[in-house]
Amino acid sequence: MLLIEPQNYDFGPGEENALELDCRKKLYEVTLRYETCGKLNADRSNAVLIEHALSGDAHVTGYHTPEDRKPGWWAEMVGPGKAIDTDRYFVICSNILGGCSGSTGPRSIDPATGKPYNMNFPVITIADMVRAQKRLIDHLGISKLLAVVGGSMGGMQVLQWMIDYPDSVAAAVPIATTAQNSAQNIAFNWVGREAIISDPKFDGGNYDPENPPGKGLSTARMLAHITYLSDETMGRKFGRNLQENDHYAFDFRRDFAVESYLQHQGRRFVERFDANSYCYITRAIDYFDLADRTNGDLAAAFHSAKGKFLVVSFSSDWLFPTKQARALVKALLANHLETNFCEIQSGYGHDAFLLEIDTLGAMVGAFLANTLNEVSSGKQRGAQS
Amino acid sequence: MLLIEPQNYDFGPGEENALELDCRKKLYEVTLRYETCGKLNADRSNAVLIEHALSGDAHVTGYHTPEDRKPGWWAEMVGPGKAIDTDRYFVICSNILGGCSGSTGPRSIDPATGKPYNMNFPVITIADMVRAQKRLIDHLGISKLLAVVGGSMGGMQVLQWMIDYPDSVAAAVPIATTAQNSAQNIAFNWVGREAIISDPKFDGGNYDPENPPGKGLSTARMLAHITYLSDETMGRKFGRNLQENDHYAFDFRRDFAVESYLQHQGRRFVERFDANSYCYITRAIDYFDLADRTNGDLAAAFHSAKGKFLVVSFSSDWLFPTKQARALVKALLANHLETNFCEIQSGYGHDAFLLEIDTLGAMVGAFLANTLNEVSSGKQRGAQS
Repeated sequence: MLLIEPQNYDFGPGEENALELDCRKKLYEVTLRYETCGKLNADRSNAVLIEHALSGDAHVTGYHTPEDRKPGWWAEMVGPGKAIDTDRYFVICSNILGGCSGSTGPRSIDPATGKPYNMNFPVITIADMVRAQKRLIDHLGISKLLAVVGGSMGGMQVLQWMIDYPDSVAAAVPIATTAQNSAQNIAFNWVGREAIISDPKFDGGNYDPENPPGKGLSTARMLAHITYLSDETMGRKFGRNLQENDHYAFDFRRDFAVESYLQHQGRRFVERFDANSYCYITRAIDYFDLADRTNGDLAAAFHSAKGKFLVVSFSSDWLFPTKQARALVKALLANHLETNFCEIQSGYGHDAFLLEIDTLGAMVGAFLANTLNEVSSGKQRGAQS
Repeated sequence: MLLIEPQNYDFGPGEENALELDCRKKLYEVTLRYETCGKLNADRSNAVLIEHALSGDAHVTGYHTPEDRKPGWWAEMVGPGKAIDTDRYFVICSNILGGCSGSTGPRSIDPATGKPYNMNFPVITIADMVRAQKRLIDHLGISKLLAVVGGSMGGMQVLQWMIDYPDSVAAAVPIATTAQNSAQNIAFNWVGREAIISDPKFDGGNYDPENPPGKGLSTARMLAHITYLSDETMGRKFGRNLQENDHYAFDFRRDFAVESYLQHQGRRFVERFDANSYCYITRAIDYFDLADRTNGDLAAAFHSAKGKFLVVSFSSDWLFPTKQARALVKALLANHLETNFCEIQSGYGHDAFLLEIDTLGAMVGAFLANTLNEVSSGKQRGAQS
């Protein structure tokens, strides 16, 4: 049993340790919760940073205690002998800034007031999350990551790393993601937050964590969940099946299996996730546009980027469709960056990055192994710069 | 200026006038609000019934008063000299049973109690809506409609007419619709209703109409609105444009143009639509499955159908995608029914049935004209049966 102990990295007090944010505010006494698996090699060249998605956390693989029944969220992908093989790589995964699973976020105590930030937490960006992670990587004594790997919002962080810290990463694996969050996704996030903010229990974000705005958060999660599945998966998995009755109940309680499933997903989410965090993280996703600093020119955004890329999309993902991956690939190629691209045929929709482990794992495993070989033999372009 | 006067058809009191419903309950003293345009010809063969979608009403074309600034919802399609030419056809459109624009629905007074039904209104189906419409058509002295035409939920009613009253319609034009509502659509409707029902103002449906659960209804409408547009339209129309500021506001108020648009749509909807009605109508859509009576065999559902069909879908409609139209067409062809099918190339998504008037109008206009010619010359198969 792969036992993993979560760790905290505290940035420390005072102005000199403050984290500057894109919104021009600063965060003091930041903590990042992180987990590692595997061993850093002698020349510190085998570190792989995994980036989690919206509702993920630092617990990417293994178990916290021998009693744990559920392993980390990407346990099939990351571990000894897995595609991201912790016998070869030193894997790091940290809970994002703004999260609610150990890292500093809206639920944390504001050192200036001694009370939880709640909605006084500054609005953060994907670049802010990555800036905090860079501190952690520095703290771990790693000057150059072998790779940064992540799906969905994790993929956004991967791309941000390549632009903001081009000398600190050899290879990037952005999966089921985009370089510019779309209007449709902004719209879905808006509706989800409206459901949360309209819940009277939300109380401007000052709810008691023991009595959260569960209805609103559950509605937001159910909506988001629909966007993670494909029409095809939903049809195959649930179709028009009824949950309990032989025929329609002619009422408004859950009647269909798909309704029961969503209800279950919504309730489970409320037990483990913070409503304020949900608002902040979706806002960071809204604000994600790598071409923002280059006046809409996505190719220009990658002008200083180095290293190599493996871009992966899934055919039935309509949240981050393949056409967005192609736009990213085009921007990378315009900069003559070494770019591998694959659209994996899958019916699973956006969630495929968590489910198509065989296909995805083979591809990512080979890409990482090649990169490590290149880095070890000094061939890798980024390593020469 | 085409002035139209809304009319009411009251089914009348007593058991003998009650409307039997699929849920085995009955509705008493039902009223249907309807509008007509054009003149019924001598042999009563030129009547076209238009079916409205979820949020539509009987006001399909023209103006109610000379001061009206906005015409009916399909005015570009229906009127003198338009595709559905009221110089040639007698057009009828009635507000659906369960609606909130003049026909009996949750907001109506229950004759048994003297109070509004609210959530004591029986759960209705598309077949119930059509059963009520049949009474209206009988009342108008029309034994056979030239055609039934409608998009989205209107198209569901079109198909239901062809199955339940095969001798009463010569031709059907189901547009942007399906024969079996999908799991994904059931899921979206569920989330929308959850937003409404969770709104404390909803109060189990017993809200004061002057103080409705506006937050919940607005959230439901905003969500639905996303599904009516395509990702492409949203990208072209709004992209990542900001509404007012030059750069991100770093807060949770509407920042993007698409957020502002949705907010506006949500607020406008609350002014004109009833929250209980929204719940009932979406439930009717959920329950729509023409293969339900034939154990899942869609072809068998059309076994007794007659007349001819023009099935239309739109390439970017992901709410009722073309593959669902193809499944319908396949079922029609299995019964050797005269079937015309066209997928119109359009970027407008589901809303295309309200926007692609040139292409759609040309097709529907020609189809209706041919049908009228056939009926007039006695060639139409249905007319001979």
